[in-house]
Amino acid sequence: MNEFFKVTPIEHVLNYTSDFAPVEAEIISLPDALERILAEDIVSDINIPDFARSTMDGYAVSAKSTFGASESNPAYFMVKGAVFMGETPDFSIGPEQAARIPTGGMLPKGADSVVMIEHTEAVDDSTIEVYRAVAPGQHIVDIGEDILQDNTILPKGVKIRPQELGLLAALGRTRLSVYRQPVVGIISTGDELIPIDQIPAAGKIRDINTYTLAGLVREAGGIPLIFGIMRDNFDQLHETCSLAASQSDMMLISGGSSVGTRDFTIDAISSLPESEILVHGISISPGKPTILARVGNKMFWGLPGHVVSAMVVFSVVVRPFFDRISGITLPRGMKRITARLTRNLPSAQGRTDFIRVRFIEKSGEIWAEPVIGKSGLINTMVKADGLVEIPVNTEGFDQDTPVNVIPL
Amino acid sequence: MNEFFKVTPIEHVLNYTSDFAPVEAEIISLPDALERILAEDIVSDINIPDFARSTMDGYAVSAKSTFGASESNPAYFMVKGAVFMGETPDFSIGPEQAARIPTGGMLPKGADSVVMIEHTEAVDDSTIEVYRAVAPGQHIVDIGEDILQDNTILPKGVKIRPQELGLLAALGRTRLSVYRQPVVGIISTGDELIPIDQIPAAGKIRDINTYTLAGLVREAGGIPLIFGIMRDNFDQLHETCSLAASQSDMMLISGGSSVGTRDFTIDAISSLPESEILVHGISISPGKPTILARVGNKMFWGLPGHVVSAMVVFSVVVRPFFDRISGITLPRGMKRITARLTRNLPSAQGRTDFIRVRFIEKSGEIWAEPVIGKSGLINTMVKADGLVEIPVNTEGFDQDTPVNVIPL
Repeated sequence: MNEFFKVTPIEHVLNYTSDFAPVEAEIISLPDALERILAEDIVSDINIPDFARSTMDGYAVSAKSTFGASESNPAYFMVKGAVFMGETPDFSIGPEQAARIPTGGMLPKGADSVVMIEHTEAVDDSTIEVYRAVAPGQHIVDIGEDILQDNTILPKGVKIRPQELGLLAALGRTRLSVYRQPVVGIISTGDELIPIDQIPAAGKIRDINTYTLAGLVREAGGIPLIFGIMRDNFDQLHETCSLAASQSDMMLISGGSSVGTRDFTIDAISSLPESEILVHGISISPGKPTILARVGNKMFWGLPGHVVSAMVVFSVVVRPFFDRISGITLPRGMKRITARLTRNLPSAQGRTDFIRVRFIEKSGEIWAEPVIGKSGLINTMVKADGLVEIPVNTEGFDQDTPVNVIPL
Repeated sequence: MNEFFKVTPIEHVLNYTSDFAPVEAEIISLPDALERILAEDIVSDINIPDFARSTMDGYAVSAKSTFGASESNPAYFMVKGAVFMGETPDFSIGPEQAARIPTGGMLPKGADSVVMIEHTEAVDDSTIEVYRAVAPGQHIVDIGEDILQDNTILPKGVKIRPQELGLLAALGRTRLSVYRQPVVGIISTGDELIPIDQIPAAGKIRDINTYTLAGLVREAGGIPLIFGIMRDNFDQLHETCSLAASQSDMMLISGGSSVGTRDFTIDAISSLPESEILVHGISISPGKPTILARVGNKMFWGLPGHVVSAMVVFSVVVRPFFDRISGITLPRGMKRITARLTRNLPSAQGRTDFIRVRFIEKSGEIWAEPVIGKSGLINTMVKADGLVEIPVNTEGFDQDTPVNVIPL
């Protein structure tokens, strides 16, 4: 089984996402909700605003009384009073009557619009000239115009941005239900690895995957749980995988998934109860020697040992699964950025290639410039801003082609 | 002074960024460094890798001995031994000799390349056939090929992503110097405001700006410090501004910057020692009634009371100042996304307009579709994915024009 790869196309791998369920929800307070995923539909219990408000500093009027008003032929209004912020006016206005009103103030009864202060002039203490006509509803926000009562205004599965925080604050939602952050266990395997605070002896390298993967997990909204370095030793790896399965929602094991002499990852995963290897090898480059297994209702990923390959696999394969268990159902905005290629990108057929690119700006447009360098080199990821996907059945893209870039 | 606006073009406002200095640095440990801003140049003290490594499973050879090898005319090699992960081979190889080597293994002396295992066949225990020639350096990473010793590999001012974490881990940088996160004081002013856990009486609205601005500050990498709701009362506001100035690096005061009857913000800021009003009104829409003041070496912003205007001003005006004091000097990647307009966007001349748009995908391309709605409505921000800037001296953009979108 370890001796060959029956590689799976990336589209088939992504079909497994629906096999895994979102984590459970938890109740948190509003200020902690930024970048969390909503686990309930938010229905407005009020109209916003719940009174007609001015959007300008000026005079509240009945629009009809301004009709025909102009610089050369102003309309005259009697100023009945002033509206104060946060207060209900204790008077109403009739035709040819006006009330001074600040931005955000409540319209008095009888008013249906606001004349901007710039289009008025005071004649005396109780009279103004109005130089411009307004339409009913102009310079005001009507009851329920922003948010209508009993409407679902945010659906479950949305990621909360600052504006969603504002909307929830407007509804007085001090506490809300969000999916808890998935816990992702991280294991590095390999006899060549040493902790990063040690000086590598000949042939050894520092364990950089743990830190890179932990960063990717945190960036995605998860909580990394670090299990450290495992030697290529079946018993130790089996025990750690078993522990990780009980403490995490998803496991990332990097190294040891290549066809090598000491590949225990797949054996260690297979030995766990209720385990099933779903994918062993994906037709992508970099990232071919990737393993996906289900252990009970949890995912185990065997990622390539090369940090660049591990990062690419996380970004293009693992991330959709992570998003799935995070509870995201409505991706906001877009995850891919359109840019034009600065040069030809050839590609081998029969696999999906992911090419590192950096963004450059040229005559006001965004261009994607391929980053040159062998796939194992982390400096190429540091230079890169994103990945361009070259689909399996194309021979690459020509210079100037607009491509979609997955940000890194 | 409160009675008129001498509005400043946005470009002039942004020129003030250089008046403010980055906050000081602090030492943190590597796992906490994600999304922080590097405050030191990182110079590599080692070569990475510091030994020549294989990038494939296969056989380490001297490339010269493979020249001319093909399917029909294989080259024969004597297998001298096997390289194990993390170990220094205790033998060297000569011409027509090979060593079994795993991905990541150290090349033995005498080898300069690796033949992939797929291009070999074992004849017996100590002999292999090689079906393809390799070039010197093929399928290996040479000493220093990723990171060269004594080079500056990350400059001060860079935001740390997962790949930078990996690079720092490779160098064994368990602790590093980053700029501390700027503390941003947030004050909401207005007699109409109530805390969000209260039911609004007639004419009152919940304080949504505090939550929205706190979210924007956190998203930008800052620490929000919430001072709550101030009534339109000079003494209270003066005292709070004075306190905020001593506890924060930047202050955001929303509401009370419009020309109204109860505008104490500018008076309260002006009354602080060493204060200077730099900007009172910016020629942008929305967001015109914005104030920028310097108090000692700190910034005070008076933001519009409307949450949408306050968000736009934060994103397009305040954010560059925040980034400045955060220590960011090299913006990574790009902050603007190119998209094509789904319809004409007219604009008034003499001001810079910021139009809310949402992204839609149409025939594989990203399009920006304007979000319709009055500027005071928070639901328009919830529907929006970004802002399109219409520069001051244009009359707008035509349908199909590629525009740069500032993500929200």
